[in-house]
Amino acid sequence: MQIPSDALGRRGQLRQAPEDFLSGELVAAISEHGVDSERRGLLRSAFVGALAVAGAGAAAAPEGDPDILDIPPWSLSLGKPVVANPYGRPSVFEANIVRRQSPGLTQTDQASVAFTPLQNLFGSITPSGLHFERHHQGWVDIDPRRHRLMINGLVREPLVFTMEDLMRMPSVSRMHFLECGANTAQEWGNAAVPTVQYSHGMLSGSEWTGVPLSLLLERAGYDRNAGYLLAEGADGSGMTRTINMENALDDAIVAYGQNGEMLRPEQGYPLRLVVPGVQGVSWVKWLRRLEVGDQPYATKDEASHYVDLMPDGRMRQYTAIQEAKSVITSPSGGQRLLKKGYYCITGLAWSGRGEVRKVEVSVDGGRNWRPARIEGSPQSKMLTRFNFDWTWQGETALLQSRVHDATGYIQPTRSQLVAARGTRSIYHNNAIQTWRVKDSGEVDNVQVG
Amino acid sequence: MQIPSDALGRRGQLRQAPEDFLSGELVAAISEHGVDSERRGLLRSAFVGALAVAGAGAAAAPEGDPDILDIPPWSLSLGKPVVANPYGRPSVFEANIVRRQSPGLTQTDQASVAFTPLQNLFGSITPSGLHFERHHQGWVDIDPRRHRLMINGLVREPLVFTMEDLMRMPSVSRMHFLECGANTAQEWGNAAVPTVQYSHGMLSGSEWTGVPLSLLLERAGYDRNAGYLLAEGADGSGMTRTINMENALDDAIVAYGQNGEMLRPEQGYPLRLVVPGVQGVSWVKWLRRLEVGDQPYATKDEASHYVDLMPDGRMRQYTAIQEAKSVITSPSGGQRLLKKGYYCITGLAWSGRGEVRKVEVSVDGGRNWRPARIEGSPQSKMLTRFNFDWTWQGETALLQSRVHDATGYIQPTRSQLVAARGTRSIYHNNAIQTWRVKDSGEVDNVQVG
Repeated sequence: MQIPSDALGRRGQLRQAPEDFLSGELVAAISEHGVDSERRGLLRSAFVGALAVAGAGAAAAPEGDPDILDIPPWSLSLGKPVVANPYGRPSVFEANIVRRQSPGLTQTDQASVAFTPLQNLFGSITPSGLHFERHHQGWVDIDPRRHRLMINGLVREPLVFTMEDLMRMPSVSRMHFLECGANTAQEWGNAAVPTVQYSHGMLSGSEWTGVPLSLLLERAGYDRNAGYLLAEGADGSGMTRTINMENALDDAIVAYGQNGEMLRPEQGYPLRLVVPGVQGVSWVKWLRRLEVGDQPYATKDEASHYVDLMPDGRMRQYTAIQEAKSVITSPSGGQRLLKKGYYCITGLAWSGRGEVRKVEVSVDGGRNWRPARIEGSPQSKMLTRFNFDWTWQGETALLQSRVHDATGYIQPTRSQLVAARGTRSIYHNNAIQTWRVKDSGEVDNVQVG
Repeated sequence: MQIPSDALGRRGQLRQAPEDFLSGELVAAISEHGVDSERRGLLRSAFVGALAVAGAGAAAAPEGDPDILDIPPWSLSLGKPVVANPYGRPSVFEANIVRRQSPGLTQTDQASVAFTPLQNLFGSITPSGLHFERHHQGWVDIDPRRHRLMINGLVREPLVFTMEDLMRMPSVSRMHFLECGANTAQEWGNAAVPTVQYSHGMLSGSEWTGVPLSLLLERAGYDRNAGYLLAEGADGSGMTRTINMENALDDAIVAYGQNGEMLRPEQGYPLRLVVPGVQGVSWVKWLRRLEVGDQPYATKDEASHYVDLMPDGRMRQYTAIQEAKSVITSPSGGQRLLKKGYYCITGLAWSGRGEVRKVEVSVDGGRNWRPARIEGSPQSKMLTRFNFDWTWQGETALLQSRVHDATGYIQPTRSQLVAARGTRSIYHNNAIQTWRVKDSGEVDNVQVG
């Protein structure tokens, strides 16, 4: 083993990490140390060899004695056996990275929202355990042996499928984002919520597996003149939504799989509708029925809810597509930059109309834009991770991202969106988000542009 | 609501699903009913409306009384609130879908293997909770505040990084498969294990996030003449492996993220090496040190283990790349086809040298091959899901898949592999796998070709 002699001969003070390091709390600290060249000196003086890790809470070894190494217990012990957890769980040190409910947002906890901790996540796949929740009468865990899917209405022959039937059929697997139409709803007025978990956390990216909806409609012999479907859930709310036949025949999936395994109960186990690019409420969970019809159904959740109140006082209805949108997930509201230097600005971009083509980042509130790096090959109607190199000199900065999608559409500024839509909507807020970095390093949510 | 009158007026016998439906047990039943046109009649006579689901264990409603509907409790009740599980879990009905240890395979449970239930999975992403485990001295849950990564050896300046340092640096997110070099080891002799969980279950596909290894080596000022790295883990086994500098500088990642969140403890939390295309043992978990050197290190786990015993009695060493391989995951050993008719043959294909170009399936032991459908856009060194339509007429069938990768390499038959490698190896068995469907419908593991 080649250990440099000058390294083992030194023992510096290794810094204590902030207590809330890696935490999902509202105030999540970002690292206090940069990775610039200046840092190398610090690191070198702190060098104790990888065998000699002395971190937070560890007793310090006597100074100047290179032979007394503070070896952590996990390097000296027999670990846990395999299948200690037949179904694995996150580290105990990640216990704060959880879905969180916004206090007071809804009247009951069953018709409520739990938000995904976007500020702590990486890549484009959302862990199923952290997938946001939005229910209308709570979530249920359905016995798959008792679940059925009916296709009826304007069909040659009504059909009922068991889960076995569906899982025997030709299947597809595709990655798509899922966003609640009400995501970022609270930002229509003032910059209302402190963190990206609450401002944008009704968002996920998953790999979905199931039967193409078009295949099921073919089997039932759907009426070629029928323009609509009613999708109905089996939970107590009996959620019903109208689906355009165009979406249904395009890329919709009657899905039983998510991220490699069966859907989670909160995501509609054993069956949900996947309508890529369309707002989440239409991805009906616990799907039990699809009715083919010749007109929109105007159900409760598309007549009095999930409509957009326009500046002229009229309601815009059936606005299904989630237009292109992006958000910086770190640094973001509630975090704090503890030192000047390099930061990797990271975030997510997506479009309900196809692929992400380009993401740009501004650090001065939209005056100047530079392209971000896109991770992997963007897939249609799926989250795309972007990264952007930034060196913070201690100035007040206004961090923004904007996405261009495959149709040429560019994510609007707040003022552009308000000009078209007013400020009385709840749904479909895809404006550019601004995070302000104060000279103190604190990051908060502001409205700019 | 448009419910056909003739439908509500009938009440047929809905079939009870097999008790082990969706289970991960060794004998997992495949659906007993097909989806061919003949089935539509059955379904129609069984049609009771989606409100009137009567499944396994449900009391039958009186015949001929359309008004008494057996509505399941979850459609009539208030469900559970959001964040009932702040970090979500699978359905209680999926409790059998777990990692499993192969009894007697190893002497201790700490230096053992837990296999992924491939027969129950979908798509290309492996749920982190079901990711296979292979440890050398058990798994540990390291406090990230105490963890350090050292880079030393032939470098201008040795460096030590905290987790905060690393998470502040430029990051990448990429999807890659991870396969243990010993996956399918037991098949070198006879067809030894009953299920695909045990024959191929040391395999996963994940989205990994972390710092490009090349960037860390640049920061340390690695010697341009150095051809090797030693990667060392912080667990009790102190696992050490030699990494070629070519791989290190190409696409290797010092990763902290997997499938959107921090690595799981069993996967090396808080830091592991990702060496795309290379066997799993080199993806050192709990990574604490990288030493730059000018020759291979010939550590225990690359001198006496993880070597290939060749027909001439010599050992082949440092065979890192996982060559192209594929396997049908369903129907597969231990499952049973309960009825003639349509089946969706599904499986996974991958290559350590790049993208999957084509997958073919044979149902007659390799005499005839037809192309399978590939799901999504294959990504370099990542699992690719394939599907293949098949109608089983009740004959004995020999199901095989073979992959062609971007280099033109074609997965070998068993006899081709044995001709080159003999039968005394443990590692790097990428032969075509055969599942036999007997006329009884039972599926077992056989060696053909």
